[in-house]
Parts: sequence; C-alpha cells; structure tokens
Amino acid sequence: MVPSLSSSDNNGHVSSTPDTCSDNKVVPVSSIAAALAKPDESPYYIGFEKVRVDEYHNVSNPEGIIQLGLSENTLSLDLLKEWLNKNLNESLSQGSSDGLINVDKLAPYQQFDGIMELKKVMARFMSEVLGGGTIEFDPLQVVLTCGANPANEILCNCVADPGDAFLVPAPYYPGFNRDMKIRSTVELIPVPTLSSDNFIVTIEALNIAYDQAKKQGKNVKGLLFANPSNPVGNMFNKETLQNLLNFAKEKNIHIISDEIYAGSRYGDDKFISIAEVVYPESIEKDRVHIVYGLSKDLCIPGFRLGVVYSWNQDVLTASKKLTRFCSVPLPIQQILLSMLSDGKFIQDFMKTNQERLRKRYSIFVEGLEKLGLGYVKGSAGLYCWVNMGRLMSSQDEKGELELWDKLMNIAKISVTPGGACHCTEPGWFRCCFARLSVEDVCLTIERIKRIVESVKPKCCGCQCDRNRAK
Amino acid sequence: MVPSLSSSDNNGHVSSTPDTCSDNKVVPVSSIAAALAKPDESPYYIGFEKVRVDEYHNVSNPEGIIQLGLSENTLSLDLLKEWLNKNLNESLSQGSSDGLINVDKLAPYQQFDGIMELKKVMARFMSEVLGGGTIEFDPLQVVLTCGANPANEILCNCVADPGDAFLVPAPYYPGFNRDMKIRSTVELIPVPTLSSDNFIVTIEALNIAYDQAKKQGKNVKGLLFANPSNPVGNMFNKETLQNLLNFAKEKNIHIISDEIYAGSRYGDDKFISIAEVVYPESIEKDRVHIVYGLSKDLCIPGFRLGVVYSWNQDVLTASKKLTRFCSVPLPIQQILLSMLSDGKFIQDFMKTNQERLRKRYSIFVEGLEKLGLGYVKGSAGLYCWVNMGRLMSSQDEKGELELWDKLMNIAKISVTPGGACHCTEPGWFRCCFARLSVEDVCLTIERIKRIVESVKPKCCGCQCDRNRAK
Ligand SMILES: Cc1ncc(COP(=O)(O)O)c(C=O)c1O
Ligand SMILES: Cc1ncc(COP(=O)(O)O)c(C=O)c1O
Repeated sequence: MVPSLSSSDNNGHVSSTPDTCSDNKVVPVSSIAAALAKPDESPYYIGFEKVRVDEYHNVSNPEGIIQLGLSENTLSLDLLKEWLNKNLNESLSQGSSDGLINVDKLAPYQQFDGIMELKKVMARFMSEVLGGGTIEFDPLQVVLTCGANPANEILCNCVADPGDAFLVPAPYYPGFNRDMKIRSTVELIPVPTLSSDNFIVTIEALNIAYDQAKKQGKNVKGLLFANPSNPVGNMFNKETLQNLLNFAKEKNIHIISDEIYAGSRYGDDKFISIAEVVYPESIEKDRVHIVYGLSKDLCIPGFRLGVVYSWNQDVLTASKKLTRFCSVPLPIQQILLSMLSDGKFIQDFMKTNQERLRKRYSIFVEGLEKLGLGYVKGSAGLYCWVNMGRLMSSQDEKGELELWDKLMNIAKISVTPGGACHCTEPGWFRCCFARLSVEDVCLTIERIKRIVESVKPKCCGCQCDRNRAK
Repeated sequence: MVPSLSSSDNNGHVSSTPDTCSDNKVVPVSSIAAALAKPDESPYYIGFEKVRVDEYHNVSNPEGIIQLGLSENTLSLDLLKEWLNKNLNESLSQGSSDGLINVDKLAPYQQFDGIMELKKVMARFMSEVLGGGTIEFDPLQVVLTCGANPANEILCNCVADPGDAFLVPAPYYPGFNRDMKIRSTVELIPVPTLSSDNFIVTIEALNIAYDQAKKQGKNVKGLLFANPSNPVGNMFNKETLQNLLNFAKEKNIHIISDEIYAGSRYGDDKFISIAEVVYPESIEKDRVHIVYGLSKDLCIPGFRLGVVYSWNQDVLTASKKLTRFCSVPLPIQQILLSMLSDGKFIQDFMKTNQERLRKRYSIFVEGLEKLGLGYVKGSAGLYCWVNMGRLMSSQDEKGELELWDKLMNIAKISVTPGGACHCTEPGWFRCCFARLSVEDVCLTIERIKRIVESVKPKCCGCQCDRNRAK
C-alpha cells in the first residue's frame, strides 16, 4: 500500500498532519476543530497576534504597535487596586468565625449558576446601571457566567437550533461571530445600517433582511445587538427599542440585547435598557434576554464575570444547567460580592471612571478633528468609530484593508477595520482609546498624522486631485 | 381566532407557557433549552435537589439527609486554609513593585487558555501526579479551563460531530451525559462490564459494542473513560491501557482519558496514566487526550480549574479558541500558580490528604463489612462502590430504585444508584465518603443498618427465606 499524504474526514476536512505509514492512520478531528485549527483570517484577530509579538511600551518598546484594537479600559485600575488592597482579605473571610479566610465557603461545590447573595447585589447593580435606579431587576432572573462570551453563547444555545439565523444590525462586534457561530453553528445575518442614519438600524432594513432570509429558507430566530453599540458607541433611544420589540413580536422571534457597556458612558445621553421597554408587565418579556457583565464597566475582564438576564423561564432553567461549563469560581464571587456591596466605592468608581473616559475621549476626538478625520459622536463604550475613508486609495474593501495594513505597519497602530465588523460602508475603523495614557493618545494621533500627510502631500494649495480629500 | 393553549416549535417541543391571546404568540425556545427546561429525571440529580432542601448537619439538622452522592473531598480543607491565610496576598502581588496587589496583572484581558507560568507548573504537577515523576508533560500541550466539565465538553467538540458516538465502559460517571450530550449532541454508548471482571472493560465487549454501533449506522469517534474509575474507584493496569490504545488504533478513533482522580489515591497501587503508554514518541499520541483538574486532588472544586492535555495540534489549537467560553479568572490563576509552585506545601498536602482518604475509606468499608455488604476494593477516588443487592426486594432496576428511595427517605442518606451510572448489574451504589467526618461515617453506617435490619428481621436463626440474604 502506498502511504497517502493526508486523510480526509466526513466533513471534507483534510487533516494537516501527514500519514507516516499505512498502518498509522491519521485520526480525523471534528469539523469544529478542523475549522478552528485553521489560522484566523479576520484582521480583528490578526491584529491581536501582531500586537502580541510587538506591543508598544513607552519605555521598553517605544517603536512597538499601539493597541487600539482591544476593547479594554485600564483608566481606573488605581481605584480597583486601592479597594482590593483594603478589602480582599475581608471579602474572602465573610462568614468565618475566626476572621480567617473562609475556606469552607470557597473550596466546595456550589450551584454552578452563582450564589444567591451575588445575584442579589448584581440585580441591584444592574438596576442602577441599566435601569437608572428606576427599573427593578430580579435576582431570580440572574444567571452568572465566567464572562459575557459564555453568556452570549448560552443565550444563542437557548433560542436557536443549529442552522437557525439571527439578524444582527451591522457594523457589529466581531466577537459575536465566535460566540454564536463557533460551536452553535447558527448564522448571523448582518443588517446594513448607514452613516447617514448614524448607523442606527431601521425597521425597513430589518424587514428586507428578514424577508430575504425567509425566501432563502432560513429560520430567523432572533435579533441580536449590542446597546450601547460596539463598535459605533451610540445608543438606541426608547422609540427605536420599542420598534425593535414590535418587530420581534410581529415575527415572533427573540431579542438578545448585549448591554455590557451600559455603565461606560462618557456622553450626556441617558442609557435606556431593553428592560425599560418590556417593564413592568408584558407577555413580550418572554422573548427578551439581556447580556451583561463586569468586564467593561468595572474594568475587570480578567475576573471573568458575565450575566444572562432573562424573563423566559425555560431559558433561565436551561441557562442555569449550561453554567456547568462556565461557572464563576467562588473566590471571585466572594470578592465581587463585597465589591458590589460597597455602595460608596461603586458610586465613586462609576463616576470617576466615566469622567476619565469622557476626558480620554475628548482628547482623542480633538486629535482626530485636527487631522480632519470624521467620527460618530459616541455616548458610551471604550472606542471611537472613525471615518478614515479619505486616507484610502480606493473606496472599497481592498482600500480599507490596505489602509489597515498601513496603520499597522507604518503608523504602528492596531485598529479594527469596519469590514471585520461587517460594516457595508468602507473606510470606518474602531479605535479603542481606554487603555491609553494621555501621552499615548497624543502619540497615536501623531502616528495617524504620518498617514494623513503621506496621502496629502504639501503642494501649492491648488485644488488639484492630489490635494483634494477623497 | 381561537387562542391555543400551547405552541410547538420545529422540534416538536411543546412550550410550557400558555398562549394568552392570539396576538401574543409564545416564542419557541431551542430544542436544547426545551430539553433542559424539563425536570431532571436521573436519581443522580434528584438526589442533589433532595439534599439541597434538607441536608444533614450534626448540630443544625441532625435528622437531615447525609450527602453521599456528591464526589467532593473536604478532608484537607484545614491545610488549604492555612496555606491561603499565609500566602494569599503574596500570590496576588506577584510582580508588583510596591508589594501591593498587582491589579495590572489581574484585571486586564489575557489569553483565554491560561497564562504560561501556570501551564508550566501545572505540567510539572501533572508529571508528578499522573506520571509518578517519570513522564514529562509539556506546558505547550496544556489548555486551562474553568473546571473539568468544560474540558470534557471541549474535547468532545474537538473529536466528534453532532450525532457521532463514543464508547464508554459502564458503569460511568453520570456527569459525562451532561458534558458530552447537552450541547454536543453526541451519543454515549455504554459498554457493559461485569462485577466478576472487577468492572474492568474487556476488548471483547468493546468489539461487540463497536460492531453493533456500526451496524446501526453510528459513527463511533472515540473511547471515553475515567481512570481512576468513577464510580468504581479502581484503575486500569498498563496492559489494559495498551489494549485500549490498540483498540483505538485499530478502529482509528480517539481516546479521552479523564484522570481527575489520579492524585486521590488511598490504595497501594501505582497509578498509570495513558500518557505513560503513548510515551515517549508515537504517532498514536495524536488520538489521545487527557482531562485533568484540581477539583478532586486539591479539594477545590469551588476554584474551578480544569485541564485539557492533548498531543493533537488541531485539537490543541481548537481547544484554546474554545476557552473563550470557559476561561479561568486571573486572580484564580495567580493563587494556583503560587500554590502549585510551593513544592513543600504540595508534597505535604498530597501525602496527608491521601492518608486521610485511606483512613476514611477504611472506617467506611469496615462498617460495610460489619453489615455484611460487599464492595469493590478501591484504589482511588472519593467514593466506594457498594453492593447492596441483597437489600433489594427484586434484582432489577425497579428493586434498585426502591432501595435508593428507602435509603433517601428512611435511612436519610443520599447515594448514587448504579443505574444512574449505566451499570447493567442491579444493586450497586456509589457512596462518597470524603466529605464525612469520622462520626458521620459511623452515623451513615448506623443508618444503613436500619435498612439492613428491616430486610433481615431477627428470628430464631433458622435458614428460612426471611433470614437468607438474597
Ligand atoms: C459587546 C460585547 N459583548 C461581550 C464582550 C465579551 O465580554 P467578556 O470579556 O466579559 O467575555 C465584549 C468584549 O469586547 C463586547 O464588546
Ligand atoms: C470523572 C470526573 N470528571 C470530571 C468531573 C468534574 O470536575 P469539575 O468539578 O472540575 O468540573 C468530575 C466530578 O465529579 C468527575 O467525577
């Protein structure tokens, strides 16, 4: 027998490991593993990899790449540090008779969906942050997960079967593709929005996308969005939310509203949660589910705390059982229980953090304005949605990727191109500013300037093509 | 239009929430959610629920149900407590210049599959515990997860497609059904073992099960087992492991070896990991994957640390990407990094914990012997596999469930009936002894005695039917 160089499984996946002899067959992996084993092609993930090996540091690597592709907020770590140093031991000693760390409470098994004490303070916190203090959240509807990623996946598992589809107003958070599609194999159908509508989705666009999907035999099960929007940074007003709920009602589909940035506001607008629209009593609540978490608003993605909040009893029961795969360690739960129970700390933290976000945002957009670059006026989030179309050699996907590459390799800044967010208008880039010091914001603007200047060479000031912004 | 009382989705799931009016349709949930929303029917989970509402406590609820259904070890929490009280702050301050908690290291995002420092000490720890110090484990093959449950699920995702099947020597750990079947929808085919073989699976039984599955058109993708065995408590010897690997090679399928109890030994036998059989160089390694974790051997299920260990590059790459749904919080990683790096503590802990397990096991089986109950001589694990067949009114599933009910409601002890573990011989029960004090072991034996005596009424001592053990 002639040894073959590769073998293929049922799913047409050709294994990468060569067969060394006919007796030693290469064992096929699943189609999920085969797909995930391939290198990431999205610039969103390529950017992470590039930064990983050459990240900027003001002292140790001043020529490195500045990371603006990661939605992370480090502006208020000093406050967290202070709190933790003061309260860590106490938080882990809660309920112990000798004042020592309460291992009996931390080590054993507990319900995987979280301890009730933490659900209670989380519900109160959500009522403040998402509901402005006027909407009640019920601890019995809270399911805790290790991060918002698993919360999104769980909701996807609970409302859609393999092959079903979600409508997702685009541009949308690139992570949704992983959360909803890696393992759940549902389809995300981007519903285009326009810069002229401030990237707010219209019911017309939803209807068109829905009808088209139906025509193609797709089973649309829900509407998925981040509010505040990632990557745009704006928020839905009450009327839009009401329209979205009516649309979902008409089509008898679910709504998953990812509100993880609700407390990371830097504008003056009031945030309105989908909870406010279904509140207080409505059968429509059964189709509405909220994702929340502390990764953004408390600046602790490393602590991994996410929330599924639902009014649907079946979804709640199922979600709780699914937390066996994503439960939050008890020490983390105890620390966060203490932290969220410390009303004064939380209030001060939220206020200061929002002020710092606002300042950082202002400096960043001031810089953009000086460069003559447009952006969407944001209200919340850790990023700014910037129009760099005029720096592109062609107004299409190719031009956008070329510019992204230039930004990465010449300007040495890593940003997320709109295409990675399924934005249909080329030229938009998401720039996360909340892990930059003031100096680094200025450096970033300086570096973008290099590109701006390279496409707009100084000349006599005439209106020739080379001088005109595209 | 007449309002209907319920609506049904594509999967034939009838939603439990009634339709209140024809305009307000009940929104269907996924088939996964519909299945999970139903009450648990396995005695394994019913037992948990019963104990939850009426758990025994020597002072506050002395008449409550003693939990022997949960595989948890609390025998060495005192050692953990001492270590944590001494080292917690230092472990969380690692790398900080001011000696304070290093928030810069704990709060931000990190690779979801775990920090390299922890992978390194974990590989060393596995080399000790699984490899007896002679087998090397490579940190690059370690993927960290929040508990062993997600590790099992991830491996299932990586080797099997929906509808594929695993062969699982039975009796097996009931949790496998959830880990592998809730979301992955693979089939677990129990391969029967006999008490006369000490419940060790034979290659003949595997071949029969494999051929039968093939005949039924099933796609067998792997062999799944816990070694040391849960629920039996014994271990595979090297020859059996070699045979299992040969079987897997012949059928070109995977092996998932869950070795989470490798360090919870109380017998004199040496543990042999599947790693030893594939070591040091063999193409067969590509089909072998190990699950490990700290929930059992370090008595910290509340800390949620699990491990996927694989030699298969595709499986490793895919597993790492799947950890976005089950990543370990950084504070937990830092604490465990310190703990596992503390060689003296770990060595003392393992030794003392094993001694304590051995003692508790001895007292328990002594009690069983006095009651005239048989059991499998165990080597590792937190439980004992007990033959209570002679206490049953009929030697079948019904008799087993009746006895289980009697144990729960009359003797007030919660155990796992063999049927819940897919054991084919009725009458076997798994009794976890590692969360009981010595007094509680004695009380448990006392309580079982009630049942023993109720089926063996004192009489003249003749050999009449009522006196003879069935
Ligand atoms: C909209 C949105 N949802 C969820 C997440 C993931 O949050 P976590 O880190 O808690 O999993 C992110 C992170 O960027 C996000 O932007
Ligand atoms: C064989 C086996 N694997 C995995 C687990 C789950 O471990 P964890 O709590 O780390 O998820 C258990 C727990 O009982 C087990 O017995």
